Amino acid sequence: MPTSLTPQRRPYVSRTASFAGSADSPVQVLEECLAEIDRREAEVGAFTVIDAAKARAAAEASAARWRAATPLSVIDGMPVGVKDMIDTADMVTGMGSPLFEGYRPLFDAASVQGLREAGAVIVGKTVTTEFASSHPRGTRNPWDLRRTPGGSSSGSAAAVGCGMLCGGLGTQVVGSILRPSGFCGAYGFKPSVGGINRGGSLDYLSQSVTGTIAASLADAWAMARVVADRVGGDPGYPGLTGPLSLPPPRRPTRLALLHTAGWPILAAPARASLEGAVDRLRAVGVTVLTPDDCPALVAVEEATSDALQITAGINAWEWRWPLGSFAARDASVLSASALDRHARSHAMTQPEYAALLAKRDRARATYALLGEQVDAVISVTAPGGAPIGLESTGNPIFVVPGSMLGAPGVSLPVLDDGGLPLGLQLLGFPQADADIFAVAGWVEGALR
Amino acid sequence: MPTSLTPQRRPYVSRTASFAGSADSPVQVLEECLAEIDRREAEVGAFTVIDAAKARAAAEASAARWRAATPLSVIDGMPVGVKDMIDTADMVTGMGSPLFEGYRPLFDAASVQGLREAGAVIVGKTVTTEFASSHPRGTRNPWDLRRTPGGSSSGSAAAVGCGMLCGGLGTQVVGSILRPSGFCGAYGFKPSVGGINRGGSLDYLSQSVTGTIAASLADAWAMARVVADRVGGDPGYPGLTGPLSLPPPRRPTRLALLHTAGWPILAAPARASLEGAVDRLRAVGVTVLTPDDCPALVAVEEATSDALQITAGINAWEWRWPLGSFAARDASVLSASALDRHARSHAMTQPEYAALLAKRDRARATYALLGEQVDAVISVTAPGGAPIGLESTGNPIFVVPGSMLGAPGVSLPVLDDGGLPLGLQLLGFPQADADIFAVAGWVEGALR
Repeated sequence: MPTSLTPQRRPYVSRTASFAGSADSPVQVLEECLAEIDRREAEVGAFTVIDAAKARAAAEASAARWRAATPLSVIDGMPVGVKDMIDTADMVTGMGSPLFEGYRPLFDAASVQGLREAGAVIVGKTVTTEFASSHPRGTRNPWDLRRTPGGSSSGSAAAVGCGMLCGGLGTQVVGSILRPSGFCGAYGFKPSVGGINRGGSLDYLSQSVTGTIAASLADAWAMARVVADRVGGDPGYPGLTGPLSLPPPRRPTRLALLHTAGWPILAAPARASLEGAVDRLRAVGVTVLTPDDCPALVAVEEATSDALQITAGINAWEWRWPLGSFAARDASVLSASALDRHARSHAMTQPEYAALLAKRDRARATYALLGEQVDAVISVTAPGGAPIGLESTGNPIFVVPGSMLGAPGVSLPVLDDGGLPLGLQLLGFPQADADIFAVAGWVEGALR
Repeated sequence: MPTSLTPQRRPYVSRTASFAGSADSPVQVLEECLAEIDRREAEVGAFTVIDAAKARAAAEASAARWRAATPLSVIDGMPVGVKDMIDTADMVTGMGSPLFEGYRPLFDAASVQGLREAGAVIVGKTVTTEFASSHPRGTRNPWDLRRTPGGSSSGSAAAVGCGMLCGGLGTQVVGSILRPSGFCGAYGFKPSVGGINRGGSLDYLSQSVTGTIAASLADAWAMARVVADRVGGDPGYPGLTGPLSLPPPRRPTRLALLHTAGWPILAAPARASLEGAVDRLRAVGVTVLTPDDCPALVAVEEATSDALQITAGINAWEWRWPLGSFAARDASVLSASALDRHARSHAMTQPEYAALLAKRDRARATYALLGEQVDAVISVTAPGGAPIGLESTGNPIFVVPGSMLGAPGVSLPVLDDGGLPLGLQLLGFPQADADIFAVAGWVEGALR
């Protein structure tokens, strides 16, 4: 049923300025989150683990650091959740699968280590679809409990969307951060491929990334950046660089409106909302190119028209392991979609996989050419608001191109589809993550 | 003490032709390995786990497949060991550290899954230095028990060198496959970066690879290739390609003799052995270039002259995680060298790491230019035979350039240093792994 409670995000970084005095503190923020969890969690189902006692102790320690003017980072004390694909030494990590029931990793994943070193307060683990793929695990959308929150980072998006958390870790290989962020009215950040160290998460696919879902642009950036500052990017990548706090807004000169293969199925109210935003940007002097007037954009549309098929093929091959070992252990607890992927991976050959990688490389080269002409690419995060039903996490057709391109992407909760939240997707260019935040900050201001 | 038993390798693939009849079988090969284990393991200490019962059952099943002419692969039935950095669902995986004492992974690593799917008989886990780094764990060299077997793949090299196994998995980020292979008289294969899927091994460093140590060139190639055929390379890499059995020998036209920064400390008998091999190759018409007559080789020597420092810096940063989490769990059980690396990683910054990556990229580009002029690069695997003492695994100065360059490398047990085995190192060019085996096969024949 549609809920009578209007979800409210709970931004964090903007409050820290008053933590030196007694008016506000990380303890206060945490208590607000815990109160919201009491109010909403039973019906939303965003968490697999909540550890309020440990979170309170961490928040107290953080509060003392802020009072002493010695915070560990700009997000010291931020109440966050960790997608349950990512290892935590002190909480069961279930991977959205009965296969991992009760699994206790020996140590924290890199992103969790980074968050702890930055003083973040880890409130709990958030629901993921099975192995961060398509099979959902029951989380509901806080805007309308009949609807999916999106996936695979279902729990982080739902919890952040209604203020049960200020931020959460997510992962995206197809659309698992930006799509649920859009459906739940949260800010989502999918870094460039390699931007955040994925060590210790079952998230080793070649176009997968760890990212953030948060209550503000500043929160989404700071949470990701402090992690990269402490544990780097994936090995071999410099990792996210730029200021530790949100980069200052930068007015873009030219944006490109990416239609994607989803344009024909974009819901009319969602399209009107997007076009309204484009009109406002044009009204303040930003050039917004479309495929009608930008051949480099047409080339990107063409190179990504089968992004879903290319990505599905690449992922299938890359799932040969560990799906083969999972199936050897107990195939009976795997979902039908996992078994399908397992079968699909065995219908593929190494040369077919290599051909898909080459196709992806060519698409990335095409995208780099567009980058010489525009500041960023804009689109929506889905063909409409979250669909009714919990069986599907929604269509990823608008977000999969950015995943395949390895580009940094931000979802701004500034659009709507007949009252349901929908994200404005901004895509930047690989390894220029700070710049897409600078542009997103300006765009958000212009649309406010 | 020098041992009275002369170590003998136990090749596998060459025997499989007779497995259809009753003269020989995988069961016979395994029993020979187990008998050698009975004779030698107490003094060599190559294993952390041995499961003879399970291995016998697997060998029986393989024997039946060979008799039915339905082997799963060219290595079906091959008795192998798995370096104890690599997860096995049915055997404790100890990572060479008390921190992982008794650790039982939930599922097999990719390389183990691939070996099982290919019918290999997993005899046990082989000793690794702590976290595949420098701190040794007691394995002795089967050629002389006073001496190190090298590291970090100590157990696989020692066991294969004396026929306790036909092959073993290893990993190399500095010199951990080629150096111990050379010290123990085994064949070593370090694939191109990305060549074999590393999923499920605590081996995530950017220039690290999973590879093989085996009793023949054919065994080293087949063991690696069948794994890549089943579980691919690292995500985003096509993985090893080429024939499933050893590529036919190819006579090289030009080889380059890489001195490395180790040349001044190369032991005189080792140098004489290497120069003897070079003379024989020249005598049969192969051009062997040296820095005196090849500017492209000089450029590679210069670009890799500080390979050890660059690699140490890159590794230190990439060890921020999980060393930080290990230290948080129990720093008291970490070795002094692990704690040193932990401290070093915190003295580094993200930009310093990025600068080292750029330096490595430039060295790789310089190496690619050499690849336009020669078929392969040759060198030794160490400045001499295995040194006396178990405190150090020996000097990696001759093998670290190939690691940093991401190049495929083979160690041929055809040199010696005053009676101690020493490897002839052949380096190929990235993603052309089959070709370096073709060249190595020809070189081995020419030197026999």
